[in-house]
Amino acid sequence: MNIPYTKMHGLGNSYIYIDGYQTNLSESELPKLAQAVSNVNTGIGSDGLILMLPSQVADVRMRIFNKDGSEAMNCGNGLRCVAKLAYDLGYVTKKQFKIEAKSGVVEAEVELVGDAVNQVTVDMGKPELNRSKIPMLTLSGDGDEKVINEPFLVGEENLHVTAVSMGNPHIIFYVDDIGEAPIHSVGPKVTNDPRFPEGVNVEFVEVLNQKEINFRVWERGSGITQACGTGACAAVVSSVLNNFVERNQEVIVHLDGGDLIISWVHSGHVMMKGPAVTITKGEFYWQGV
Amino acid sequence: MNIPYTKMHGLGNSYIYIDGYQTNLSESELPKLAQAVSNVNTGIGSDGLILMLPSQVADVRMRIFNKDGSEAMNCGNGLRCVAKLAYDLGYVTKKQFKIEAKSGVVEAEVELVGDAVNQVTVDMGKPELNRSKIPMLTLSGDGDEKVINEPFLVGEENLHVTAVSMGNPHIIFYVDDIGEAPIHSVGPKVTNDPRFPEGVNVEFVEVLNQKEINFRVWERGSGITQACGTGACAAVVSSVLNNFVERNQEVIVHLDGGDLIISWVHSGHVMMKGPAVTITKGEFYWQGV
Repeated sequence: MNIPYTKMHGLGNSYIYIDGYQTNLSESELPKLAQAVSNVNTGIGSDGLILMLPSQVADVRMRIFNKDGSEAMNCGNGLRCVAKLAYDLGYVTKKQFKIEAKSGVVEAEVELVGDAVNQVTVDMGKPELNRSKIPMLTLSGDGDEKVINEPFLVGEENLHVTAVSMGNPHIIFYVDDIGEAPIHSVGPKVTNDPRFPEGVNVEFVEVLNQKEINFRVWERGSGITQACGTGACAAVVSSVLNNFVERNQEVIVHLDGGDLIISWVHSGHVMMKGPAVTITKGEFYWQGV
Repeated sequence: MNIPYTKMHGLGNSYIYIDGYQTNLSESELPKLAQAVSNVNTGIGSDGLILMLPSQVADVRMRIFNKDGSEAMNCGNGLRCVAKLAYDLGYVTKKQFKIEAKSGVVEAEVELVGDAVNQVTVDMGKPELNRSKIPMLTLSGDGDEKVINEPFLVGEENLHVTAVSMGNPHIIFYVDDIGEAPIHSVGPKVTNDPRFPEGVNVEFVEVLNQKEINFRVWERGSGITQACGTGACAAVVSSVLNNFVERNQEVIVHLDGGDLIISWVHSGHVMMKGPAVTITKGEFYWQGV
């Protein structure tokens, strides 16, 4: 079975995109195909598979399948690529449109260079700041205040954290030099800390100035990754809460995989703008289920 | 620049294959393209790039570029895939033909299923067995005998090794159960042992019967890999030298990535037969040099 695909990436977070307007796949084939295409040795190689489909409630729909075949709720880097693909292929003709993901409907806006989409802004929704919504436990187990620059013991070290949920849990540590951030030691220790019943993405931020921060992340379940869109959003929200950057202002976030431009606007929503890149188009010769 | 390619694998050892009969690339572009396509985050994802070209001295020529852009001498899994690609595309029409690699000219023979090549046998040449040709130093520094079941100290443990060069150095340890082979402890320790001035590929073999062995490898410079063609050949030569299997007989070698059929024939050459699989064909949108 020959399956046409496009491989795209946003800051190095790459997926195999299948045009579900043209290619029909059964529900049982999808997890197996995601595993097959993601394998860099015997398949193409990617972080998973994203299926682009017509939507009943938005202009286009995306379904995300991880490397292991499980279905994901959402992915900021994937949203930008789906927006580009849907526009470049002509399935949407407006520059502002809605994308349906498993987690809900998201607003996207594309910017063109020539005829092709180059940058995409995605509405990443409102952060949740209350402790119970992260979720993050106190040592005493009660209280539902915001977690801003709160003392936080890691091993025997007294650090401070700010906690933000962007639909998934994040904590942010501030450092003086991102190159010296203790990501390898603190990341794996904190991500599974019992204070976070659902685990946590562990982020390190160096504030360069009021409009620019450096960012590195230990992602829950993945370890160090090149880019985490929700993490970059959480870092900007955290930096507003700590008075390092201003609300309603574009902040450049330098991630390992490249830059995102993020603003926490007055409506309460976090807007994320970044690149979407088409790597290759081809046919995958699937040896089948 | 849009570059047509085929991605193929032999036992999970995958390369991006460029048809140099049709696509012209400059010498300075090749290392950069190899790095670009190999990167699974921002490129396609592979162990490197193989360029297929017309040959002055054989029926087809291959040049292999590693992930880091350096040029490699040869690759058994790559040879099988080049043989399949050259035959499937009609650049060769005989089933037995010669492939020019940087290390020399190699004989190949293809087997078809329908119109397409399915299995390929490659002449991997003659093993070198003398100590100086591995190369492997003695503790006293002299002597040039073969290294067959020789006592070999790893840390404080007394093990035994057989050493074989297939153009690159291999040592073989025999174990009772491949699942219990101490590959993680012995592999990294021995691969850079000062007794091997050029380093060594470290292999573990469990003999199942006179026609079948299990094999795992710690590759010099790479660590554990799914398959090492020259290593599997060395393992069969070693197993003949140790009287575990017979000379001039097909031995099935079970590697992590799949099976190879290997025989050390009377001429002194080692013949390796195994699969070659086309994964995908497409166009790579190269952002350029």
